[in-house]
Amino acid sequence: MAGDLEGFNFEQQHGKDRVRVARVWRTPGGRNYMVEWEVSISLFSDCVDAYTRDDNSSIVATDTMKNTVYVKAKECSEQLSVEQFAILLAKHFTSFYKEVTAAVVKIVEKPWERVYVDGQPHEHGFKLGSEKHTTEVTVKKTGALKLTSGIAGLSVLKTTMSGFEGFIRDKHTALPETRERMLATEVTASWRYSYDTLSSVPRDLLYFQERYMDVKKVLMSTFFGPPKEGVYSASVQSTLYQMARAVLAGFPDISAVQLKMPNIHFLPVNISTKDNPSMVKFNHDVYLPTDEPHGSIQASLSRFWSRM
Amino acid sequence: MAGDLEGFNFEQQHGKDRVRVARVWRTPGGRNYMVEWEVSISLFSDCVDAYTRDDNSSIVATDTMKNTVYVKAKECSEQLSVEQFAILLAKHFTSFYKEVTAAVVKIVEKPWERVYVDGQPHEHGFKLGSEKHTTEVTVKKTGALKLTSGIAGLSVLKTTMSGFEGFIRDKHTALPETRERMLATEVTASWRYSYDTLSSVPRDLLYFQERYMDVKKVLMSTFFGPPKEGVYSASVQSTLYQMARAVLAGFPDISAVQLKMPNIHFLPVNISTKDNPSMVKFNHDVYLPTDEPHGSIQASLSRFWSRM
Amino acid sequence: MAGDLEGFNFEQQHGKDRVRVARVWRTPGGRNYMVEWEVSISLFSDCVDAYTRDDNSSIVATDTMKNTVYVKAKECSEQLSVEQFAILLAKHFTSFYKEVTAAVVKIVEKPWERVYVDGQPHEHGFKLGSEKHTTEVTVKKTGALKLTSGIAGLSVLKTTMSGFEGFIRDKHTALPETRERMLATEVTASWRYSYDTLSSVPRDLLYFQERYMDVKKVLMSTFFGPPKEGVYSASVQSTLYQMARAVLAGFPDISAVQLKMPNIHFLPVNISTKDNPSMVKFNHDVYLPTDEPHGSIQASLSRFWSRM
Amino acid sequence: MAGDLEGFNFEQQHGKDRVRVARVWRTPGGRNYMVEWEVSISLFSDCVDAYTRDDNSSIVATDTMKNTVYVKAKECSEQLSVEQFAILLAKHFTSFYKEVTAAVVKIVEKPWERVYVDGQPHEHGFKLGSEKHTTEVTVKKTGALKLTSGIAGLSVLKTTMSGFEGFIRDKHTALPETRERMLATEVTASWRYSYDTLSSVPRDLLYFQERYMDVKKVLMSTFFGPPKEGVYSASVQSTLYQMARAVLAGFPDISAVQLKMPNIHFLPVNISTKDNPSMVKFNHDVYLPTDEPHGSIQASLSRFWSRM
Repeated sequence: MAGDLEGFNFEQQHGKDRVRVARVWRTPGGRNYMVEWEVSISLFSDCVDAYTRDDNSSIVATDTMKNTVYVKAKECSEQLSVEQFAILLAKHFTSFYKEVTAAVVKIVEKPWERVYVDGQPHEHGFKLGSEKHTTEVTVKKTGALKLTSGIAGLSVLKTTMSGFEGFIRDKHTALPETRERMLATEVTASWRYSYDTLSSVPRDLLYFQERYMDVKKVLMSTFFGPPKEGVYSASVQSTLYQMARAVLAGFPDISAVQLKMPNIHFLPVNISTKDNPSMVKFNHDVYLPTDEPHGSIQASLSRFWSRM
Repeated sequence: MAGDLEGFNFEQQHGKDRVRVARVWRTPGGRNYMVEWEVSISLFSDCVDAYTRDDNSSIVATDTMKNTVYVKAKECSEQLSVEQFAILLAKHFTSFYKEVTAAVVKIVEKPWERVYVDGQPHEHGFKLGSEKHTTEVTVKKTGALKLTSGIAGLSVLKTTMSGFEGFIRDKHTALPETRERMLATEVTASWRYSYDTLSSVPRDLLYFQERYMDVKKVLMSTFFGPPKEGVYSASVQSTLYQMARAVLAGFPDISAVQLKMPNIHFLPVNISTKDNPSMVKFNHDVYLPTDEPHGSIQASLSRFWSRM
Repeated sequence: MAGDLEGFNFEQQHGKDRVRVARVWRTPGGRNYMVEWEVSISLFSDCVDAYTRDDNSSIVATDTMKNTVYVKAKECSEQLSVEQFAILLAKHFTSFYKEVTAAVVKIVEKPWERVYVDGQPHEHGFKLGSEKHTTEVTVKKTGALKLTSGIAGLSVLKTTMSGFEGFIRDKHTALPETRERMLATEVTASWRYSYDTLSSVPRDLLYFQERYMDVKKVLMSTFFGPPKEGVYSASVQSTLYQMARAVLAGFPDISAVQLKMPNIHFLPVNISTKDNPSMVKFNHDVYLPTDEPHGSIQASLSRFWSRM
Repeated sequence: MAGDLEGFNFEQQHGKDRVRVARVWRTPGGRNYMVEWEVSISLFSDCVDAYTRDDNSSIVATDTMKNTVYVKAKECSEQLSVEQFAILLAKHFTSFYKEVTAAVVKIVEKPWERVYVDGQPHEHGFKLGSEKHTTEVTVKKTGALKLTSGIAGLSVLKTTMSGFEGFIRDKHTALPETRERMLATEVTASWRYSYDTLSSVPRDLLYFQERYMDVKKVLMSTFFGPPKEGVYSASVQSTLYQMARAVLAGFPDISAVQLKMPNIHFLPVNISTKDNPSMVKFNHDVYLPTDEPHGSIQASLSRFWSRM
């Protein structure tokens, strides 16, 4: 919400962060399904008088937003993707309140995975995995939609088939060139779908959940290459670009993809002193992993001009 | 850096995060000064071939960026503000490398404060305080500049003179109205200066350091009000707005200010059971502090149309 | 190290924490193996003069300890378990330095797991998993050994087959009894092996790695029960005890096991107001997960009197 | 609670962690006082049947413990130290429940400090400081007491008057000797009082709060030395010992003190390449601060044989 105010320009939003909710669905046969979500809601609304005149009459209380998360979770009688739940929430706020012009809903799904016991999937047992499924949805009163899904905390590493050569050398350059190094990163990915209105979104409640699994698979297989040979990485930049390309190539309803891939360094260990010149002499065997400092590489690739 | 690429739009940046440096200045009389900074650098540069053709010849290695931080810290023979150091770094990258079109430098200063022993300032002793001074500087090859300073982690609380009434009541509303509640928040502030070229920046090396102290004082005195009476807060929104106004009113060279003020709830404690209906009955005395969930209120106020 | 000092009793230890090392082993066929360890070393040694007389001549510098980690990692030409590496380090410090009477080495292994691409294990690709393998080894100059392995961060949850009834009810009790609740915890386990001298430790370099996998399997299958029916949990206490029993029953060379199992609450969601008495009415479907506060349950079970 | 069980030795305890409570006291004149505490309770009790027989009849529910925190906070009509509140809670559990043989209560106090506005203390305004006041109290059914207070997160640094020389040099030693280095640490201190029964504890409700302030002052003035000259530190060990001695010397009712003082390294920065041998040449000016890895030095000093 932006506007002119006492000669100033003013933009504001308010909402509720870190609303935690878990939803369980139970089938007659005994199979249980569950999700755990951490929800953030932010509303753009016509409530400037709350800021300037102590008049709260156009304010949706953030406590009310929190309650709404639980009401809506209750109403979901069937399992649904985190994206569908975010859409449903955002749609509620923009349609229910005349003051609300747009709603942004972000959700992080906790990676609970069904466990296997004795080689069988367990009916009601779950274990926490690692990387997280995320979503961010913006809905306007008009029904216009911006929908992104993402992955957070996908840490991957390959022990060979990576190098970095031919970069700029100047008076501040000390890094040697190499065709053999560790490559480690913690991928944060987000991709935008081409659906741009509430009515155009696929109705299958688990559609985006499957997409998430498929995109993750493409990102990983591009990063690692074939199981036997792998694929040479000439730079984090090059690998990142190939991953982004593969996503756009593989999924026609994804219009843009953004990747953040910090270069988590595994430094070759060499230690020497005058008396012990080869205390530790690196031979592609012993590394010092560090994320302080780390390289930061990010890029976005889109089918058209679009700010992620 | 953005452009057209194989029919796609492509935007990219690369840099180094979490570069830690400390700088000590020693006076002949024995007084020591010190700062500790965590630096993030991000470069926009013409190096698309690194992404698409495995050609790194236009890439500034992030290791080189790291070295540059130390080289430049060494060159600073006089104590300077974190803003001036960020400008100096950003200027270097855009002027030294023909490929670099813009540089963004963010720094967080660790809040080391000179200690007092026996009521006297210590010549070389420091203790870590709480809230942090931050800066973000963008410099373009042209010399165009965007300079912001900020505060992170300024946690403040008042035990009375706060309420929240008259907000929208609907079927999902449970929050009672009140004229007496705790008000607690962790302020994240950033303000943009009107200096928009390298050459227009004040030359006094500690100018922005003093501004930082003064802005903090204004934010706090507006939040709390006079020491005896305080000032009534009708909402976080209202208090936030007054704080933003006070900053723009007090500092003509600040053109915009952004405040994020989560509402850290101190919930009234009431516990009752059928057998013990008044186990704990709230009387503005016992609270449950929680930041999960919390309200999220943010706004920016600027002298002209400007995105923070 | 403890002793009498100027009329006081004095105990001290010194060491190095957070030493990070990664080790890669490469087979001629192209298969790569890797581990990443965070090592903590603490030495008990005769170096009291460093404390009391500014005489450092009996001090092993912590920087030297750090170097030793890399030297020893280099010497490990074959893949080995984290326990074996900890033993090797502890043995070095107690045998190499006359001043060192005992060494404690703790290591946390980062859960890098080989990835599968196209259904095949990848030759050199790894992905970060969730729970962590830990070890703590104490070695004395005499060769006496105390060896524990552990798991940190094993988060598990079951959506049914859990209750809590019949506990003490008094004037401060509000919790209803139930035979149907969520049960969630983050297991921290450690188990002590019966090997109590350096010479008695099994020589197979991966023996303890296999044990770790097996113990984890027993802990989980006991927590969850059979895949179809599960197993009813009458309390976290009861489940914890069964898990501890199963470990001692299954592994004769484990002499003691300690389990910490916080009760991570999934609170039933009920929201009501005068106007909307059934805004959300719990029906084993919608929960509020929270770990602030949480129950804390811990116990140790041992074959003989032994402090973990 | 420990005992013999099915041929095994068994020890267990259960409780509630991270119970957050704030308490406000308001004077007629308008001055407000407040504290915010995070409470952990652990009970040793005769409830083994809960573990082994699914019989919860001797279990104090952790939810009941949580309620008790709020009930007792309510009952505190006068401001009191965190230690007194911990004692009061522990006393309740051991006297109220026949099953409970001992209670351990740990509390961390959030460092809210009264703000000054226009040079005056504010009647109801507070700001978060840095280091934290902690306490741990053990009370047995007999009335026997163990009382410790502590400080967590006291980060201090001096830019000179510190060295490290004459330590053991061997084939793994690379660290140069020096008489001029940075000395930085994050002190964790705890001290045990000699009061060993509930009835012997001083009745002044703020006695231990004042002691806390005084102990902190002694620790800091010993670490830093006089404001003008400072005091030379020959090692972290030496400085730690002097701090411990000063506490025991200054406070007759403190019977033991434990200090953990990690050596947070500020590494001298030297960067050189073949082409640029003096890219950065250290002259006691530019440092790389790092806490990964860090030295770990801890010791306890007590008036008699006592395990902290």
